[in-house]
Amino acid sequence: MENLKNIPWQEKPENCNTVMWRYSENPIIDRYAIPSSNSIFNSAVVPFEDGYAGVFRCDNKAVQMNIFAGFSKNGIDWDINHEPISFKAGNTEMIDSDYKYDPRVVFIEDRYWITWCNGYHGPTIGIGYTFDFKEFFQCENAFLPFNRNGVLFPKKINGKYAMLSRPSDNGHTAFGDIYISYSPDMKYWGEHRCVMKVAPFEQSAWQCTKIGAGPIPILTNEGWLVFYHGVIATCNGFRYSIGASILDENEPDKVKYRSQPYLMAPAELYELTGDVPNVIFPCAAVHSEKEDKLALYYGAADTVTAMAFGKLSEIIDFVKNNSL
Amino acid sequence: MENLKNIPWQEKPENCNTVMWRYSENPIIDRYAIPSSNSIFNSAVVPFEDGYAGVFRCDNKAVQMNIFAGFSKNGIDWDINHEPISFKAGNTEMIDSDYKYDPRVVFIEDRYWITWCNGYHGPTIGIGYTFDFKEFFQCENAFLPFNRNGVLFPKKINGKYAMLSRPSDNGHTAFGDIYISYSPDMKYWGEHRCVMKVAPFEQSAWQCTKIGAGPIPILTNEGWLVFYHGVIATCNGFRYSIGASILDENEPDKVKYRSQPYLMAPAELYELTGDVPNVIFPCAAVHSEKEDKLALYYGAADTVTAMAFGKLSEIIDFVKNNSL
Amino acid sequence: MENLKNIPWQEKPENCNTVMWRYSENPIIDRYAIPSSNSIFNSAVVPFEDGYAGVFRCDNKAVQMNIFAGFSKNGIDWDINHEPISFKAGNTEMIDSDYKYDPRVVFIEDRYWITWCNGYHGPTIGIGYTFDFKEFFQCENAFLPFNRNGVLFPKKINGKYAMLSRPSDNGHTAFGDIYISYSPDMKYWGEHRCVMKVAPFEQSAWQCTKIGAGPIPILTNEGWLVFYHGVIATCNGFRYSIGASILDENEPDKVKYRSQPYLMAPAELYELTGDVPNVIFPCAAVHSEKEDKLALYYGAADTVTAMAFGKLSEIIDFVKNNSL
Amino acid sequence: MENLKNIPWQEKPENCNTVMWRYSENPIIDRYAIPSSNSIFNSAVVPFEDGYAGVFRCDNKAVQMNIFAGFSKNGIDWDINHEPISFKAGNTEMIDSDYKYDPRVVFIEDRYWITWCNGYHGPTIGIGYTFDFKEFFQCENAFLPFNRNGVLFPKKINGKYAMLSRPSDNGHTAFGDIYISYSPDMKYWGEHRCVMKVAPFEQSAWQCTKIGAGPIPILTNEGWLVFYHGVIATCNGFRYSIGASILDENEPDKVKYRSQPYLMAPAELYELTGDVPNVIFPCAAVHSEKEDKLALYYGAADTVTAMAFGKLSEIIDFVKNNSL
Amino acid sequence: MENLKNIPWQEKPENCNTVMWRYSENPIIDRYAIPSSNSIFNSAVVPFEDGYAGVFRCDNKAVQMNIFAGFSKNGIDWDINHEPISFKAGNTEMIDSDYKYDPRVVFIEDRYWITWCNGYHGPTIGIGYTFDFKEFFQCENAFLPFNRNGVLFPKKINGKYAMLSRPSDNGHTAFGDIYISYSPDMKYWGEHRCVMKVAPFEQSAWQCTKIGAGPIPILTNEGWLVFYHGVIATCNGFRYSIGASILDENEPDKVKYRSQPYLMAPAELYELTGDVPNVIFPCAAVHSEKEDKLALYYGAADTVTAMAFGKLSEIIDFVKNNSL
Amino acid sequence: MENLKNIPWQEKPENCNTVMWRYSENPIIDRYAIPSSNSIFNSAVVPFEDGYAGVFRCDNKAVQMNIFAGFSKNGIDWDINHEPISFKAGNTEMIDSDYKYDPRVVFIEDRYWITWCNGYHGPTIGIGYTFDFKEFFQCENAFLPFNRNGVLFPKKINGKYAMLSRPSDNGHTAFGDIYISYSPDMKYWGEHRCVMKVAPFEQSAWQCTKIGAGPIPILTNEGWLVFYHGVIATCNGFRYSIGASILDENEPDKVKYRSQPYLMAPAELYELTGDVPNVIFPCAAVHSEKEDKLALYYGAADTVTAMAFGKLSEIIDFVKNNSL
Repeated sequence: MENLKNIPWQEKPENCNTVMWRYSENPIIDRYAIPSSNSIFNSAVVPFEDGYAGVFRCDNKAVQMNIFAGFSKNGIDWDINHEPISFKAGNTEMIDSDYKYDPRVVFIEDRYWITWCNGYHGPTIGIGYTFDFKEFFQCENAFLPFNRNGVLFPKKINGKYAMLSRPSDNGHTAFGDIYISYSPDMKYWGEHRCVMKVAPFEQSAWQCTKIGAGPIPILTNEGWLVFYHGVIATCNGFRYSIGASILDENEPDKVKYRSQPYLMAPAELYELTGDVPNVIFPCAAVHSEKEDKLALYYGAADTVTAMAFGKLSEIIDFVKNNSL
Repeated sequence: MENLKNIPWQEKPENCNTVMWRYSENPIIDRYAIPSSNSIFNSAVVPFEDGYAGVFRCDNKAVQMNIFAGFSKNGIDWDINHEPISFKAGNTEMIDSDYKYDPRVVFIEDRYWITWCNGYHGPTIGIGYTFDFKEFFQCENAFLPFNRNGVLFPKKINGKYAMLSRPSDNGHTAFGDIYISYSPDMKYWGEHRCVMKVAPFEQSAWQCTKIGAGPIPILTNEGWLVFYHGVIATCNGFRYSIGASILDENEPDKVKYRSQPYLMAPAELYELTGDVPNVIFPCAAVHSEKEDKLALYYGAADTVTAMAFGKLSEIIDFVKNNSL
Repeated sequence: MENLKNIPWQEKPENCNTVMWRYSENPIIDRYAIPSSNSIFNSAVVPFEDGYAGVFRCDNKAVQMNIFAGFSKNGIDWDINHEPISFKAGNTEMIDSDYKYDPRVVFIEDRYWITWCNGYHGPTIGIGYTFDFKEFFQCENAFLPFNRNGVLFPKKINGKYAMLSRPSDNGHTAFGDIYISYSPDMKYWGEHRCVMKVAPFEQSAWQCTKIGAGPIPILTNEGWLVFYHGVIATCNGFRYSIGASILDENEPDKVKYRSQPYLMAPAELYELTGDVPNVIFPCAAVHSEKEDKLALYYGAADTVTAMAFGKLSEIIDFVKNNSL
Repeated sequence: MENLKNIPWQEKPENCNTVMWRYSENPIIDRYAIPSSNSIFNSAVVPFEDGYAGVFRCDNKAVQMNIFAGFSKNGIDWDINHEPISFKAGNTEMIDSDYKYDPRVVFIEDRYWITWCNGYHGPTIGIGYTFDFKEFFQCENAFLPFNRNGVLFPKKINGKYAMLSRPSDNGHTAFGDIYISYSPDMKYWGEHRCVMKVAPFEQSAWQCTKIGAGPIPILTNEGWLVFYHGVIATCNGFRYSIGASILDENEPDKVKYRSQPYLMAPAELYELTGDVPNVIFPCAAVHSEKEDKLALYYGAADTVTAMAFGKLSEIIDFVKNNSL
Repeated sequence: MENLKNIPWQEKPENCNTVMWRYSENPIIDRYAIPSSNSIFNSAVVPFEDGYAGVFRCDNKAVQMNIFAGFSKNGIDWDINHEPISFKAGNTEMIDSDYKYDPRVVFIEDRYWITWCNGYHGPTIGIGYTFDFKEFFQCENAFLPFNRNGVLFPKKINGKYAMLSRPSDNGHTAFGDIYISYSPDMKYWGEHRCVMKVAPFEQSAWQCTKIGAGPIPILTNEGWLVFYHGVIATCNGFRYSIGASILDENEPDKVKYRSQPYLMAPAELYELTGDVPNVIFPCAAVHSEKEDKLALYYGAADTVTAMAFGKLSEIIDFVKNNSL
Repeated sequence: MENLKNIPWQEKPENCNTVMWRYSENPIIDRYAIPSSNSIFNSAVVPFEDGYAGVFRCDNKAVQMNIFAGFSKNGIDWDINHEPISFKAGNTEMIDSDYKYDPRVVFIEDRYWITWCNGYHGPTIGIGYTFDFKEFFQCENAFLPFNRNGVLFPKKINGKYAMLSRPSDNGHTAFGDIYISYSPDMKYWGEHRCVMKVAPFEQSAWQCTKIGAGPIPILTNEGWLVFYHGVIATCNGFRYSIGASILDENEPDKVKYRSQPYLMAPAELYELTGDVPNVIFPCAAVHSEKEDKLALYYGAADTVTAMAFGKLSEIIDFVKNNSL
């Protein structure tokens, strides 16, 4: 488990009775933080050297979706490159990519792996890696279209790479469940299993339309802690909230616990207004087990990037005690 | 007619040229007013003992919909129970209820009747009663699915209970008109008549997609004053506004007047942003005929509860003078 | 139970291995059987005097839907009136009726009751009665819109009239389950209960989209035998087949058995082609318990009227032995 | 080219790195600026006498859409008539008009021509003219339904009147391209040519769903400068942004340049919230070639009217340098 | 009025009680009548020299839609060219044409005019002419997209060419009314008026979804006789039937009579089965006033070409006596 | 290449001018050919021992979809087992299967591989194998949902198994293109490439909505001959026709030729009527290169199984000479 020393953090406000709380200076990254950007959101962060590196979704002012590298000393103040990531061929010839969005990043063994929603005849899961966040390599897509929210586990499971994903269609998909797939080599994928389905409306309506994994799963004493987004279709469109589940350590297609209430839902003005109102969408988290701290990165209203905090032990207890 | 002594009230602001005006301290009930709640809105209030009682829609953080009792001395500051209403069997065995929302409350003869949208194989009209807001009894549903916005008249008409409702389907219904039905016994219902249809787009577009009755009808010298919500489908979803009509006292399926302009439409930030933007939805009103005061309770953005005020006589004149 | 003497009948063909078989001279009523008609289908038949009477859906060449009385000596050759039924006011003032279709007829106590799909601000269940099939009286509609396939039980249950129906919406409804409701007086209706839902696609796809009751339920030793139509949505539209269920005699919202396979599905050219291809839709049956004969009337392709036969005992066995 | 002396203007804020910037006192016209109005937006302005005249879309509180004349000395502070424009018959008998919205105004030769979306069996392009903004004449509709966003060129081209428009359907159209048509006499129209289609999602997603011309084209050294709105369909509805293109002076169906990035997109609270969130919709512009100034009028959130400014030369350079 | 000598004809069968009857040898043109064809239907015929000429919609086996010339001595047996019509530029440069279908042909003054549904950024009305059915000239499209069923009147009205058409959208349009437009020169079109709308479902359901003009209008003593198709949307798709109306001779946007019942509806196997079942679609008629004969050409099931006959006087009487 | 000795065959009828022709005794398998069946169609056949074996889609009378083994001496007269195939675990633990349909069968190296549409949280590609058509083994599904029409190549390509498939969604998909994927081991799949997209409506409308591979590809001197189905969406639903393409032998994602016209389209009564009218759907072919004969098996109207024949050389020439 991670034991970061300089984890971004802010203590819980008084009178706050929820398990997670927002950073008081949200959003941490403004929509116009680089010259070309229309919006910066749904982005991934990992510890890197003595600080942090990240891969950021920056839609430009033509609303072209692409991913950019960035760096930070404290995990809160970021320098994002002004040019998108340029990939070299990785484990295959170069793959077409009409667009790239919603990245996740994870260190496995010797390198940082990046997954994202890759536009190849529709959305599917793109895979790449880097050793240094300067030189990037693009690999085979994991799956056929149509798929989104591909999230790798931070270590091999039973000797194989493992990835969560959400099969879908090619529009504003009105359904979607979380599956797991395995690969011996990051090139060929199989052993697909269903992990979590949407919840019944009567039991947990915030996650009754579609769900998708968020940050890299965190290994805890209880199993894999997986933050995910859940969607309800209101008469005025989709509303994205955040929950968490705990999967079995060795058989991660088995759900041990899953939050019936949401952990966070859109409530602040920067979450309620923007390019797509009422969306909070987590893509990364950093934590220190020793300090019992977790910092969550999430996109707000498909426009800006924000943070929230919580104590790891309290989040786990909440999921166990409020399980669907 | 009611002549409440301690009716909640705030004088019309200067420079206000509309018939109704908002309470300056809106919203009166915050989304997190009880520990479990995600939102508190679309709720019902009646005079009770020396103050007020109410039945409140509180969606919890799993976004489960249920109704809760609450009490207030002045009709503005409320204590809402932390547990939902628990019903005993009323005039039948217990009815299933997957969810309950959008309550209305009315005193008839010897007790307080409550109607709400009851989840029984889809939405239909649930009926219950209480004598004291402590012990509650649930009766037969009024109708087959699918129906919403069941609103009882405050006295029998021609010897029968009378209820307004809005037949619909089982989704985010894109149509809906107001009907009236009668019952000799609050158990068997019949004599269904169409009362009001949506308005033509060209004449009154704010109410061209669907309409539904709001608070309990108020008997005036002109007939039954019925506040209702009207919906227009914009390219960004439904927008809910408030109008009023006047029905014949003895033949309430006859519409005497009906407001072509709305009385109120979403305009304040707590109405324009929230879980469902651009919704104002009235479920209750209290009034004093003697003081010529009316206080309206409405849900805002499916998130919080707000109030508005108006002079009863001016509202009636407005509906008569601006009739469709 | 009925023990008709002159029940229409034709023996099972050799090599037929199904429980029900078609009349070899189908269709029994041609689409142009009366001068004004475009199609005659989905019609109801009852024993009357020394022969049979019926209420027929005849769409005219303007494709206006209306119901017509008709008479037959043998139940197969019919004289249908050239003018639609003209109703007088029954237990209420006259009800509007934009259209009438899909009638059912049943004798209870002292008269023949007719139900049909009545166009009153959308489809709902119309009710009427006659003593002689010459003079007809129209009563209150049973329910608010939107409803279809209202089918009365042939005797009171626990002292009340009982009706099956299928709540729906106002278009080509893509969903629909069967409910039961009760009335003390054929005017006010309540005690609504869900009886049967559509079947899961994997278990019985022919009835996975919507279902609706057909002929008047038949009381047997096992309970109420209810023929019903089931619908599957193919990529080329709806396909209507016929199944049967057996309901508890005294608590008819309890399903004892329900056919997983269909009893009949569209297969003959007069069922596969016509105004609406691939529809068989039963609205009436006559039977003799003593002779163990049942004759079923059904509409074919929304165009013509056809018959099928079966042994009552074999049908009951089939439903019991192939229950979902 | 226009060389207005008193063009409305505000210098670019420091630290602003975009080509266009908003007026700091936006919105310039409030939703309730005349007594009857629910919203005032998507309106047209022209230089007139020593100041400005305009034609304003004011939806009233019945949400009826109509157009109103208004006057201003400085182009920013407006007096709008309290009654809608009343038309007399122009080049034909009077045309029905169920509603009027989204006007444009242009001076050609001897008079001011007005076009708007006219409700004639659905939306089409209405045409009228005035000499003095007191007396107005209505002409033949330009086209059959269904059409919107009819925008005249400010002078004849090859001896004919020329109009941009966007054929569509009769709902919240999910597609739409810009065409040009010609007329010898403002009565008969022909020579229809396709000018601009929506952009591929991968190249310029903000304009991938539909596009429509905005203000009157401006003749520059490079050709006709045409501001237009572009729409992207998000999972929460349509988002309207603003771009520009440059058409060939003599063959205006030829697009020389077209902005791949937007010039402006919804970002301020008065653009993100209102009757239809996330809409900015330009209908008029005034400019001074000599002073290199352009002032753009646009509706915000279908609720209020706002302004933005830019240097004409910089806008042209931007479109040339960032062409799709 | 036409007084053809060799009009195709077959006497009414005995026992036929309808105004029109089918040719006993239908279909007259098989789907594979030319080597490349998949289907030949919805085609136009005119008297030419001592026989007949026609323009035929032949979809080829790639299901590309195009129009072909053909010739016949008797109007029943046809020789259709194996190559589609090749157009030269007429009153403008050559117009793009992605596809051509559903032609009509009419002689006016000195030449044969052809209209069809022309694929120019979606369907619109193409116009061409020929003097000899050997050399063909293509003119300006009449309208912007989207339009279908453009039908010219056989002579100028008030000095102008006149055309019926049906504005629509770019898919399987679920709505559509008939309009009229005028032109001084077959190039510029205007004075658009609505002629006939769909009928209310309750009054004439066969024509409640969309309608479109069929053959060239026939001038009679009562006015213009216009055959048209009407469509009802069943749960299994669209059903196309045939009716007729009579328009005022000098003001053809005035409907004098319009058939409430259909004249013909799909009933024969070649109409009920084929590429698009349940479609009969008339595009041409020839008649002799003197002999009181009319022969109608119609496409069946979008697959073959068929004929029906009727006495002109009886058809007119039928429309007058059964008017909506 | 195959050189079967007893290939089913019937000579081309005289006057037949198409490349393929139907068997005169079609359908070869009736809908009720086994006692439980509602329909038998979309089935696969391979040479086996001295005759043929097959895997048949038999929907039962509950309309449950499953696959059954069958045997034939001559490839025309079939004995189909009365019980569905029972699978044992193959290269993984047993996979869930809510339903199985549309099988294909191919011999590779040492065994017969079967692919089908497998119901695993929606449709995806199931894989199994058998050595003797008595004992069957089920392997890992090839892909995540949603996918259909998985078709294996009959030998490894560049050392890998290769499969065509059609990613889709979970309903009556209105889109769909053909992709290829590779596997080293029939368990892990990757290197997904797009092979063929739907054709533009203007060029080849019969294949403009969706396409999917049919029988096992046949290696010819020109490359892989792939029969496929193409779909057009008419206003009355989907119409399925048959075409063919030729893929590069070593790089089968490269299309060398593709038929612009269809090879066959629904035209016979058993194709035009049935459970889903207007569907012909090929799943298998057998051929003899030496005798220049090919026999194609296809489902008709989702109801019965039929055959067609053609000379292999003529089919290849047709595709080359009529390439899109």
